Order: sequence, then C-alpha cells, then structure tokens
Amino acid sequence: MKPWGGRFKGKTDPLLERFSASIDYDQALYRYDIEGSKAHTEMLNRIGVLTKEEMKDIAAALDEIQKEIEMGIFTFSSSLEDIHMHIEARLIEKTGEAGKKLHTGRSRNDQVSLDTRMYLKDQLKRVEESLMGLLKGLLQKAEKEKETIMPGYTHMQKAQVVTFSHYLMAYYYMFKRDRERLQNILRGIDVMPLGSGALAGSTMPLDRDFVRKKLGFARVSENSMDSVSDRDFVVDAIYGAAMAMMHMSRLSEDLIIFSSNEAAFVALPDALCTGSSLMPHKKNPDALELIRGKASRVISDLFSIFTILKGLPMTYNRDLQEDKEPLFHAIETVKESLAVMTLCIAGMKADRKRMERAVRESYMPAVEMAEYLTLKGVPFREAHGIVGRLVRDCEEKGKPFKNLTITTLKKFSPLFEKDVFASIDPQAILKNRKTEGAASFKEVERQINAEKVYCNR
Amino acid sequence: MKPWGGRFKGKTDPLLERFSASIDYDQALYRYDIEGSKAHTEMLNRIGVLTKEEMKDIAAALDEIQKEIEMGIFTFSSSLEDIHMHIEARLIEKTGEAGKKLHTGRSRNDQVSLDTRMYLKDQLKRVEESLMGLLKGLLQKAEKEKETIMPGYTHMQKAQVVTFSHYLMAYYYMFKRDRERLQNILRGIDVMPLGSGALAGSTMPLDRDFVRKKLGFARVSENSMDSVSDRDFVVDAIYGAAMAMMHMSRLSEDLIIFSSNEAAFVALPDALCTGSSLMPHKKNPDALELIRGKASRVISDLFSIFTILKGLPMTYNRDLQEDKEPLFHAIETVKESLAVMTLCIAGMKADRKRMERAVRESYMPAVEMAEYLTLKGVPFREAHGIVGRLVRDCEEKGKPFKNLTITTLKKFSPLFEKDVFASIDPQAILKNRKTEGAASFKEVERQINAEKVYCNR
Amino acid sequence: MKPWGGRFKGKTDPLLERFSASIDYDQALYRYDIEGSKAHTEMLNRIGVLTKEEMKDIAAALDEIQKEIEMGIFTFSSSLEDIHMHIEARLIEKTGEAGKKLHTGRSRNDQVSLDTRMYLKDQLKRVEESLMGLLKGLLQKAEKEKETIMPGYTHMQKAQVVTFSHYLMAYYYMFKRDRERLQNILRGIDVMPLGSGALAGSTMPLDRDFVRKKLGFARVSENSMDSVSDRDFVVDAIYGAAMAMMHMSRLSEDLIIFSSNEAAFVALPDALCTGSSLMPHKKNPDALELIRGKASRVISDLFSIFTILKGLPMTYNRDLQEDKEPLFHAIETVKESLAVMTLCIAGMKADRKRMERAVRESYMPAVEMAEYLTLKGVPFREAHGIVGRLVRDCEEKGKPFKNLTITTLKKFSPLFEKDVFASIDPQAILKNRKTEGAASFKEVERQINAEKVYCNR
Amino acid sequence: MKPWGGRFKGKTDPLLERFSASIDYDQALYRYDIEGSKAHTEMLNRIGVLTKEEMKDIAAALDEIQKEIEMGIFTFSSSLEDIHMHIEARLIEKTGEAGKKLHTGRSRNDQVSLDTRMYLKDQLKRVEESLMGLLKGLLQKAEKEKETIMPGYTHMQKAQVVTFSHYLMAYYYMFKRDRERLQNILRGIDVMPLGSGALAGSTMPLDRDFVRKKLGFARVSENSMDSVSDRDFVVDAIYGAAMAMMHMSRLSEDLIIFSSNEAAFVALPDALCTGSSLMPHKKNPDALELIRGKASRVISDLFSIFTILKGLPMTYNRDLQEDKEPLFHAIETVKESLAVMTLCIAGMKADRKRMERAVRESYMPAVEMAEYLTLKGVPFREAHGIVGRLVRDCEEKGKPFKNLTITTLKKFSPLFEKDVFASIDPQAILKNRKTEGAASFKEVERQINAEKVYCNR
Repeated sequence: MKPWGGRFKGKTDPLLERFSASIDYDQALYRYDIEGSKAHTEMLNRIGVLTKEEMKDIAAALDEIQKEIEMGIFTFSSSLEDIHMHIEARLIEKTGEAGKKLHTGRSRNDQVSLDTRMYLKDQLKRVEESLMGLLKGLLQKAEKEKETIMPGYTHMQKAQVVTFSHYLMAYYYMFKRDRERLQNILRGIDVMPLGSGALAGSTMPLDRDFVRKKLGFARVSENSMDSVSDRDFVVDAIYGAAMAMMHMSRLSEDLIIFSSNEAAFVALPDALCTGSSLMPHKKNPDALELIRGKASRVISDLFSIFTILKGLPMTYNRDLQEDKEPLFHAIETVKESLAVMTLCIAGMKADRKRMERAVRESYMPAVEMAEYLTLKGVPFREAHGIVGRLVRDCEEKGKPFKNLTITTLKKFSPLFEKDVFASIDPQAILKNRKTEGAASFKEVERQINAEKVYCNR
Repeated sequence: MKPWGGRFKGKTDPLLERFSASIDYDQALYRYDIEGSKAHTEMLNRIGVLTKEEMKDIAAALDEIQKEIEMGIFTFSSSLEDIHMHIEARLIEKTGEAGKKLHTGRSRNDQVSLDTRMYLKDQLKRVEESLMGLLKGLLQKAEKEKETIMPGYTHMQKAQVVTFSHYLMAYYYMFKRDRERLQNILRGIDVMPLGSGALAGSTMPLDRDFVRKKLGFARVSENSMDSVSDRDFVVDAIYGAAMAMMHMSRLSEDLIIFSSNEAAFVALPDALCTGSSLMPHKKNPDALELIRGKASRVISDLFSIFTILKGLPMTYNRDLQEDKEPLFHAIETVKESLAVMTLCIAGMKADRKRMERAVRESYMPAVEMAEYLTLKGVPFREAHGIVGRLVRDCEEKGKPFKNLTITTLKKFSPLFEKDVFASIDPQAILKNRKTEGAASFKEVERQINAEKVYCNR
Repeated sequence: MKPWGGRFKGKTDPLLERFSASIDYDQALYRYDIEGSKAHTEMLNRIGVLTKEEMKDIAAALDEIQKEIEMGIFTFSSSLEDIHMHIEARLIEKTGEAGKKLHTGRSRNDQVSLDTRMYLKDQLKRVEESLMGLLKGLLQKAEKEKETIMPGYTHMQKAQVVTFSHYLMAYYYMFKRDRERLQNILRGIDVMPLGSGALAGSTMPLDRDFVRKKLGFARVSENSMDSVSDRDFVVDAIYGAAMAMMHMSRLSEDLIIFSSNEAAFVALPDALCTGSSLMPHKKNPDALELIRGKASRVISDLFSIFTILKGLPMTYNRDLQEDKEPLFHAIETVKESLAVMTLCIAGMKADRKRMERAVRESYMPAVEMAEYLTLKGVPFREAHGIVGRLVRDCEEKGKPFKNLTITTLKKFSPLFEKDVFASIDPQAILKNRKTEGAASFKEVERQINAEKVYCNR
Repeated sequence: MKPWGGRFKGKTDPLLERFSASIDYDQALYRYDIEGSKAHTEMLNRIGVLTKEEMKDIAAALDEIQKEIEMGIFTFSSSLEDIHMHIEARLIEKTGEAGKKLHTGRSRNDQVSLDTRMYLKDQLKRVEESLMGLLKGLLQKAEKEKETIMPGYTHMQKAQVVTFSHYLMAYYYMFKRDRERLQNILRGIDVMPLGSGALAGSTMPLDRDFVRKKLGFARVSENSMDSVSDRDFVVDAIYGAAMAMMHMSRLSEDLIIFSSNEAAFVALPDALCTGSSLMPHKKNPDALELIRGKASRVISDLFSIFTILKGLPMTYNRDLQEDKEPLFHAIETVKESLAVMTLCIAGMKADRKRMERAVRESYMPAVEMAEYLTLKGVPFREAHGIVGRLVRDCEEKGKPFKNLTITTLKKFSPLFEKDVFASIDPQAILKNRKTEGAASFKEVERQINAEKVYCNR
C-alpha cells in the first residue's frame, strides 16, 4: 500500500504508476532531500517530537541511504513515485517507528520546493563558476588579440574597422550581464519553504528558523500557500540559463561564419571539430552548432514552465511535477555549453592576415571620410551623400579606396586634401576614435585592464 | 581513431565527445537503422558493390547486432557518437572488409533521415491506434450517458442544458480531427531519402527505387539537398502530437473541474488518483493534471524544433541533431497520455443526480424562453431584453425559474402563456432542439450511430 | 444599454470597455460578417421568421453599412465591443423591428467562427497564390542557372559541388510542401458552423444546409459544443503560415550569407536593399533580414494560440478573442513575405565566376575520389581514410587538389591512375552523378521540366 | 532620395518600403527621440560642431515638430521608414544646414537603443505604479476578509481550511516579487548607449557623459559593438511583464472558478462583466478571461524576441526592428491588465456564508486530526493511515466529520478523546496554527501589518 493509501480502496493502476512516477529524474535531488530531512529531524527533536535516540537513528539511516544510492545499490521503483517516498520508505524499513515520525508537519509540497531550491543554490553556483571561466577566457583572448584588426559587421556586411579584441569584449560584457542576472536570481532562490506543509502551515510548533539556519538559507518563505505553489524561482533560473544560451548561440553563429571557407578568419582546433562519414575532407564546427541548437531547447524549457504555470489555480497542482525535466535540462545544458564554449575560445586561432586583408579590401573608412569632411564644416548629412557617391563610383570602376588619388577625390569635394589618406588608414582610425567604449586601441586596453580587476576579485 | 578521422591530427576532446554524442537517445532508432542497412546491403549487391557472400555476412552480422542490443550486451560509448557509427563499427569487427563497404554511397545525413522516417511511420501508427482507442471509449461512454442531462458552460458559467453524451461527443470530434491530421502527416513522412548521400547524391549507380520498395515507402525523395536538411516531417509529427495533447489538456481541465468538490459531477476511480503524503483525506486527479502539464511540454517540443530550423542555412547542420529528443518526447508522451486518458474516460462515473440538480437550479432555459417569445413574433433582440430583466428580478428575489408563476411572467410580457413552462423544461428542450448537431437527444443519437460505423471501419 | 444588458444593473466600467473591445482589429472581418448575415437573413425568411419585406430591408441596409465602412464614414466605438454588435446596432438604427430579428437563433459564438472561417477561406487562397508565385519564380531562376556550378554546404563548410539550380530547387520542394499542407488545412476550414448557437443549437427550425450552400461551404459542423469552442482551424492556419515563414527564414539566411562580402555569390538589386544613416558605403539586405525576423514572430503567433487553448474548459471562453491578432498577423505577414521573397529571387544576380572559383579552390571532390577507389574495389571506409590523409597533406602544404600530380596520389594509394583527374573535375562530377534527385545536370533538368507541368496546371 | 541614398542607383521598391517601414509603430517613440536629439544637439555645441545659434534653431524646430506630432498634423510616410528619419527630414526642412549636422557622430543603431531605453525607463515606472496599486488593493481586501474562512485547495480538491485573507496575501507576495524583479530590470536598462555610433564609436570627440547626465542615465554603455546589438534589456522587460501576466493569469483562473455557479464564493460587479448576445441570463467574467488570454500573448512576445536574437551574428541586423511590436504589446498589456485586475479585486464581493459552508462540509480537518494523534505519540505515518481509513468510512456512509461521535472515533484509535472535536474545529485550527507564514489569524495579521509599512514607504 502507498504511504498515503489509507482512504483508498483500489490499487493504483500500473499504467498510472508509470505515467505519474517522477523517480527517473527527481532522484537527482537525493542529496538535497537527505540533507533537508536531517535538518527537519534535528528540529523535530528540538520541539520534542523525536527523542535524541530517534534523531540519531534517523540521521544514521539517512547516511546509509545516501551511500546506497551513491553506490548504485538502492532499489528504485515507479510504485514509490518520487525520491521523497523512496527515501521515507527505506528509512522506515531501517528504523521502524522512528522513521514513521519523520514526515511530521511536513508535506511533499514544501519538501520538493526545499529540495529544488537547495539544488539550484548549489548548481547555479557552478553555472556562475563556468560563466567566470568563460569571462576569463574571453578576456585572455581579447588581450592576446589587441592589435588584430578586423572588419566589424552590421547586416552581415562590412561596416567599420574594429579589433578582434573589441569584438571579443562585446561578448565579454554580455556574459558579465548574465552573471549579474544570475546573482539576482540566486537571491530569489535563497528562501526556505519547509514548514509550509501542504499549503497551510502546521499546528505543530515547528521551528522554521532553526531549519533555515541549519541549511544556510537567507530567509524563510512568507505565506504558506504561496510557498508550495510558487515556481517563480524555477522560471527565473531557466530564464537565466536561456539568456546565457542565447548569447552563446550568437557567438556560435559568428564563429561558424568566421570559420567558414569564405571568411576563414578563425580556425578551430581539430579536437573541437568532427568529420563526415561520407566526405573525407570535412572538418565541421560541431561544438558550436550544437550550442546553437541546444539554445533553442533551453528557450523551449522556459516556454514549458511558463505554459505549465499560466493556467494553474492555487495552490499545488500535479502539473508542477513537470517543472523538473525542463529545469534540469536547462541547468545541465548551460553548464556544459559554457565549458565547451570556453574550450572553443581558448582553442581557436585567429588568421590575422586574412582579417587585415578583409579590412584593407573594403570601403569601410567611408564613415571616417565623411567625418573628415564634417570636421571641415560640411554638414554631416551632406558629407554622407558625397562619400556615398564616391563609393558608387569606385564600385562601378572596381577600384578599392586604397587606389584613390587626390585628383579623383577632389572631383567629389574640393575640401579633400592629402591628409585624408592618413585619416582613413585603418590603424589611424583605431588610434583616432575618441569616444568611451569605442573600437580604439586605447579604449579596449582600458576596458581589459578594468575587467581584469573584476575577474580576479 | 574515428571512422571519419583520416584528415584529423588531434584527438577529439573528451568534453566534446560527451557533449556531441547522441547515442544516449538515438539508440532508440537501432531497429530502423539495421533494417535500413539491410536494404542498402541488398541494393549494393544488386549493383555489384557487394558480392552475395558479403551481403549474407553483413545481413547475418546485423541480425546478431540487433540481438546483442536487445539482450542488453551491446557496448555503447560516447566516443562512437551515434547509433549509426556504433552499428557500423561493430559490423566491421564482425565482418572485416565486407563491413567497410556498407557505407558506400551513403552518408549519416540521409541515413538518419531514413531512420527517423521509419521510426515515425511505425510509431505514428501506434499513436493512431491509441487515438482510435480513445475515440471508441468516448463513443461508448457517450452512448451510456445519452439520457444524462447536464449544464453546458460558456465562460465557466452555466449556459444551456445539454447532455453528458453531447459533451463527450464534442471531444470525440476533436480527436477525430486529430486522427485525420495524423493521416495527412503520415503521407508526408512516407518518403524514402536514402541515396541522397551527404547532400548531392552519388556517382555510384545506387538503385533508390529498389530500397524504397524493400522498405515499403510510397515515394523516393526528390532533391538531394532538400532530402538531407528537411525536417518538415519532424515538425509535422510533433505538431500532430501537440494538437492531440492540447485537446487532452482541455478535456483534463474539464474533468478536473467536474470532479472538484464543488461540481462533483464526475468521480474518478481510486486506481487513477493518488493521495497526499500529509493530508489523509485527499484523493487527487493526478492523471489528468499530469496530462495537462505534459501538454505544455509537447507544445514546447514544437517550439524547439521550429527555433532550431528557423535560422539554419542549407543543408545539414549539426543543430539538427537536437531534433531527436523533442521528437521522441512528443511521440512517447502523446502515446502514453492517450492510453491514460482512455482509462479515465472508461473509469469515470457520472453523478447523474447532481448533474440534473445543477440543471434544474439554473436560469439556463432563458434562451428557450426568449425563443418562445420570438416564435410569438417578438423580435429576438427585444425578447432577449425581456427575459434578461426577468432573470435580474428572479435573482434579486432569490427565486429559481421553477418557482415562477404565470402571473409573474405576464408582468414581463403579456405574450407568456402557460405553455411556456412546457417549453422551458430541460427534457422538453432536449427534445425540441431541431438544428443539425444540436444538443438534442435525437441529434446525438444520430451522430453516435454514424460514428460507430466510422470506428468499426 | 448594451444589446445584452437586460439582466445588468450597473454600467460597464469604461476601462473594461476599452480592455475588452476587439473592434480595433476584428473590423477586418466586416465583409464576411455582412455576407454571413445576409445568408442568415435569407434563411430566416425561408423558415418564416422574417417576411420577404423584412429580408429585403435588412439586405439593403447591410449593403449600405458595407458602403459606409468602405467609405470610412462608419462610426466605431469600443462601447459596442466588436464588429458583430456594431453592424447589428447600425442595422437596428436603419431598419427598426426587422433588424432586431436578425440575431434569432444565432450567437456571436457561432457567428465569429463563421466569419473567421470565411476570412481564412478567402485569405488562404491568396496565400496560396503568393506561394505559387514564389514557386514559379524559383523555377524560372533554376532554369536560368542550370549550368551555374557552386559549392554545396554542410555545417557551413564546403561539402560537394552542386549547381545553383539544384540549390534553388531544394527550396522549390519546401514551398511545394507548404502549398500541399495549405490545401489540407483549407479542407479543415471549409466547415459551416452557423446554427450551433451559443453552444447547444436551437429550438428554432434553422436550415443550416441552406446557409452552407449559400456561403459555399463543403460541410456543416457536426457538434454544436465543439463548433463554438473549436479553434483548431485557426491553429492549423497559423501553423501553415509558420512553416512557410520558417522556410523563407532559411532561404533568407542563405541569401544573406551568399550576398556577404566574403561569399559575394549573389547580389541583390538596390531596389531591395537599404543604406545606413551613418555609413555611406553600406548596402544592406534588409528585406531578407526582416523576413527572418518576422518568421520568429509568426512562430510566436502559433505559441500564442496553443497556450490560449491549452487550458480552456468547454465551451466558449473570452480568452478565445485573443486568437484574432495572432491569426491576422500571421496571415498578413506570410502573404507580404512571400511577395517580397519572390521579388528577391527574381531580382538577385548570381556571380557565376565567383561561385565557380569557390568550387575550384576546394577539396570538395574528395568524395568522388573515394568513390573512384571504391569502384576499384577498396572498401569505402578505407577509401575514405586514404583520401582524408591526402586532404590533410594538401592542407599542410597549402596545395589545392588541382595542383596534385599522379606521383603524389600514388603515395596514398597505388590504385590511383591518371583517369582520376577526369573523375574529380566539377563538370564531370555533375555529369556522372547517377542517383534520382542528385545534384547532376540531367536530374535537375528532368525535375525542372516535371515541375513546370505542376506549376502550369 | 533617401538620406542614406548616395551610393544607390535604383529607387527602393515600394513593396519593400511598406514591408520594411516601422513608422506605424515606432512613432510611439517620438518624445524620446526628440528629447535625445536635443541632448545630442547641446553636446555637439559643446564640442564645437554646432554654433550656439544652430543649437537654438534645432531645439526650437524639434519643439515645433513635437507639437506637430501631438496635434496630429505631422505627415507620416513609409518612404521615410522610421521615426528617426521622419524627424530628421522635417528638421532639415525647417532649419536647413543646421539640421543636416544633427546626425554627426550618431547612427540610427545607437539612437534607437537610446529611444527604447528612455521609453522603458518611463513606461516601467508606470508599470511599477500599477503594480503598487494592485498590491495595495490586495492588502486592503486581505484586511477586510481577515475573518473569512474558506477551503484551501490543492489539485483543485479541498485540502485545508485557510482564510480568504491568507489566500489573497499569497498573490500579494507574488506581485511583490514582480515589483522587485522590475526594479532589478530597471537597473539594467539605465545605461546610455549614444556615442556608440553604428558599431564602432566615433573619431569625433563626442562627450558621452554630458549626454548621459542630461538625460538622467546612471551609466554609459561600455562596448560600442555590444551597445548597438544588445537587446537584453528588451528581453528582460518583456520577461518582467510576462511574469506579472502569468501571476495575473493564475489569479484570474482562481477567480473565474470562485465565481462559477458551482463555487459561487465570489461575485464580480456587473460593471466588470459582460453578457451574451443570445443567452439573456448570462453574466460572464470577461475581464478575467481576457487577462488569462492576454497572458499567453505576452509570453509569446518573450519567445518572439528570444527567437529573433538567438540566431543573429554581430552586430546590428535588421531583424532587430521586430523587437518593437512585441515590446510595446507586452508593456501596454501588462499595464492595462494590472489596472483591470485592481478593479476586479476592489469590486469583487466574497460570499462569506458559502465559503464557510464549504469548509464545514468537508473532511479538511483530517490533517489536524492526524496531528492530534501525533501529539499523543502516534508516529505521523501511522496517524495518517488511521485518519485515512476513517475518511473512507465516513465517505462510504455519507457522513460528514461534524456528525462523528467519540464512539466511532475510538474504533479507529483508542487515543481519541473528546478534546479532539475542539482541535478539528475550523476556527480552532486557524487559531492553533503556529508556524511562521501559516494560515492562522495571527500570522496573517502580522504579515498584513508588516506589508502596510512596505506599501506606504
């Protein structure tokens, strides 16, 4: 009979048992479940529900159970539904009467919220570490490529000259925001729900604050009904993961394009590529493609949990069980993807010559040419038109900017003087840019130095 | 070394191996992979690439491999990536040179498309059978509850009297549409892609039509680039599953409400409910809640595959590997949910008295009262206003329709005569409704009889 | 007072009036609403609810109303909620008693379903025409580029030589599937719901089949409860749009990459590009980027409607009103995007020389080199390894295939003879490919000819 | 000619003009665009690009333009694409040369980011005010219903007695979290991007910090490439809106059920309901249903923006234009929905008698009965079983708890004494619950008092 089976006549249908069991995936929570049960046990002893003896027996048995699980000798069965009932059932086998007292004042509703919060406090710290790893990797690479010039793109068309370093730092700041978002999210998770019971709290004098301290939470939850039906912290955690995956997907998209035969700005190490079963010459950036594909699925995890919650009346409904798989998937995926991305950043090799050639064979200095005229008093909108016509002329004649003569230039504006060539040289541009955060050697260096401090804090 | 490793110097990073391996889930395709390889083998013999001997060796070895997998003695390892390479590697162990010839003219790109199409042809037929099971279950229940009157709702407010039978038939028609949609989808899946190679077809004289016939497909695919990058059939299959899940979610929502303490129209058997770890009196409709929750996740599976595909350039990209888990999840979930829902429909008990009482204690015959006036020549919009004011009056006095007297009625319209009471009696209404498909005893019976023919075809 | 206001005491809160009004967008349905009302009017006359006189008055007034709307002199107000009530209210102003009879046996629940189905029958035909336009455009371009060789890609890496024609035909087949899907969807829409009333049908002897014929529908709906709460046809229509958008998004992604400075395979006409407010030299493929972005939103429209429906109990709930904006957005967007895409396909210019150079500077014939060895008896897996090592060697030495000598080749396999060069020439490969649907001159020509017949049917 | 048209030969295709114009919706940004341009103007004067005279002319002309827009006499046209170009073009009409200088050092890429951030800083403060309005409304209602007892539900089955006040406070805490989330999000938005140019900053000595102070931003953005392609703040804002909508959807679901004929715990005022065009007696909770439906669409807005961003290479791509409509829709919808929900909370009437009756006719005190035994030393798991069997017995005999005798009770456990009746009385239970945050009169009062302080801060 089920532990909750007192009022039931019939047996549970085996099909429903399989359909409703969560043990296949929620066994991932066993450590947190056991740690939470131990804190609850100690508290029950403090308020006189368990004797010292019973408390010790239970704690010892829980330790044994943990070992059984970790050694792979614990028996799981869908008839016991979930990790909570598995552990309780085994505990009763081991300790008899004492074990039957463990669930006093507790419901699986507040217990699963506790376990999930403990899981997330633990796992999100690991995600944060992986994020720090990626931040440091980007910073190192950015430092190494400080002098590497490359085309910056808008609309996938060459736009303005930048450095590879500046480009990498753009992603650095995205992932820095992800880290800060994660830290906010962690504060929302750090709330201890146990003691909320099924939905209404308890007539037993449970000492919630004792359990809170024991388990290292910042606060206890405030309203028992909210406590058991709240999954905001799950949505927030998946959201944090989805944002980081989205950023990694963009970075992957870039690096896949940069390592295409056409751009060939970047080469990934063999160790991070795979080949084709049919085509002997292929070397594919699979790691990056997988990150991009997995991003879609983590975004969908977010959609899952939103759609689950959106229609639920108060308080706990069994639909909430379906939060686990999307959550676990999102957290595992973001953790692994961050590790793989860090390898890619560290392992990729920039082809500085190709990048420079791509800069030199372009009309990208058109902006600086217009700014040159602007500084000589031509209203910007007019200067833009003059240079636009010049570009069209060059294109029609198949002539790059570097082949321009001052005579030609003067046909477009008499204000052009020979010093224009100095101002549209890529290196000069990267020296001349003055605005905070610009693609300039100096600004990028300043920011790298500032962020080194941040990363080594 | 990897089978594709000729041009690679370094070893694959173990982290990437784990990250990119699909063997954990695509082993589900083993049967189809082996069956497809056998057909390919036979064809290679026909065109002279394999001798008869080699063909026989390969076929025998593939049978052995199938047995090894089914007996659980086959060794899986993430270094061999996917099911295709596992089987090929083992085949070469067993047959040597012959095995090395199997992949002639074939790529994993067309192979995985073949396997997935074979999987879906097989599995969607099972989904269809489960759908038929549910259709028949609904029809049986509808027949049993032909006389059971109940309130029909709009906006979750009592609207008009219907029969429980009519209500069940509404869902019947939804699931019937699901079945028809599935049949359309199956036609799109029934296309044989092998022979498309990596993306360009082959200079080998592969006999695609032979393979098609061997494997029982309706057509061969038309364009090799499309063939290897097309996942429309996967999107369609998940879409078909999502629609059925959405319908089951609505039905679950209804039955959860109907089995609430407030409505108590319907009782689910103990075998399909579970209890509470804390609250001894609880009996919860978990099966239905889970279906509702799982619907969210299947809809998200659809979003996954859409988002994966949406940004992909031609042709095959590794992102496509991420189609498997959403697909398998969607198919498994809809199959199981249909089975569970069929149990619920069969097992639930209608409380006919409570349903009837809910009808009798309502103002639902207001429509028929207005139609009564309309038949006496009052424009409908006016009749609606008259009856609306009557309802307001009744409500303020806390008086149900059944306590109305003709004197009161006449205050609202002199056209009311005693025969109005006959026309607003629930049983009378259910006899009087005349339109095709209406909630009337006769119409429902007619439809049940017609659908029996459909179900027994 | 509202037309439904009989039983109400208070006035509707103006905030709720604004919040719940759908008139801003559902006025798009006015033509269908009026046409539907006319058919209903004629039917009411047939069954004796309206005199011939009344029928004529109503029909004339409805025509006037249509003109008022089309001339922009009709007054819309959120207090009249939706298009149905606007038209009914104005009709009553114009015709008095007669107009008050129009809503006999009809509810906005079945009326809005009718209007939406009529809208979709009309609009999806236009979508289909646009699809045909794109199909023809692709076919013409494919014919024009039959001889244009280009690299085919997997993983965004050069994979095998194909023709631009073959590439374009890959998309042709995707959009052909979209058209077939649309035709299936249209069959599901072609169902006449009027006469289902609010949810239960009617005691009035409404002649549903008369209305069906009058409005040109294939069938009448079967179950009144299903009829008013069913939005499957809306989901299907958005799904059809989303699939076509997804395909266009992929094509856009490709063409954006092909028109990047790095590939420069394709140039879009100035008329389909826009410039930069700051950078005078920019020419951006905005049309394609917008299609790609809009695809995301149409996919989200699909998730809107799924999420709306997923939690709804039977039958009509006001949440259903939120189906209109996603539906209208999806249909308008797919229609416009198809038109823009057709322009892009017609207007783009292929740079055949660059495409050919990209083919010649690659190791793409590696597959055919391996197949060459296979035909000489080397098991494919071994041949793959031999050629893989050859590619690695070439790459290390920076040597393209075209510079290979037979001496070098023989170092890798003694089976190489001079005839290998003939078999790895791109033109030869495109002649030699033998499989149905392969990237070969002959196969593509065959398919183009077949599809011309399809398109001109 | 377009302002960016210098290098273009052909005219833009009118179809593309319509397809790519954003002016229909981005005109909502006009105020922010003008305010931003004024700050930019002042800065250009500071660094010597504009004379004092020019600066004044521009500022005056911008003020005129603002008035023209607000008076509805400004001409919008899709050929000028967006709000930025409309205002610049009109400015040049008004001021000639001076106006042509305005765009110096600025791109629409950084300009639209600035405008959107200004819009969000402004609008999210309004959302926050609406949230505070709802929080206060919930608190007032909670205070008013402190003594109102009602059933608390899990799985939509009666679970334990709570107060209506406790129930309302559960939502209070959800919306409080939403407010705190919003405040975090606002911090991420408060970053000034102008000066980042198209993607690379400027060689002009733009004073970004001056503009920042002028416009009241907390920080300037750090990396110019990140600045123009970053839409994290848009995703965050939509996420914040989606979470609040999800909570309102749950509250709506509850209140729709509570105001159903079956529960009838709560009545909504006529002013917030609407009627049926066909059924005279209907009074429907449309406001709540619409909120529930609209929640789906705001969640989909979130998926729009995620899907748009997920595949984009750096930096700006035109797909980003599609962020506006989802953003504006999400912000407008959450603002309106909060206002409507606040009206619903204020206007709804609790039927205290029905709620109490629903409590008294239940087996909900089963938990406290088990806790009674636990306090007498029965292990909880055993006590649970005893009471479970008792409930089954009562149900079979159709006997409510209140009719139980001590004789009967003793049959189930000899430990039952007469004092058990005192401990299972609902009022007693609500007095006896001891845990922090429990459903007890005292705890709820304590929390209401604490939150009054929060709300009046």
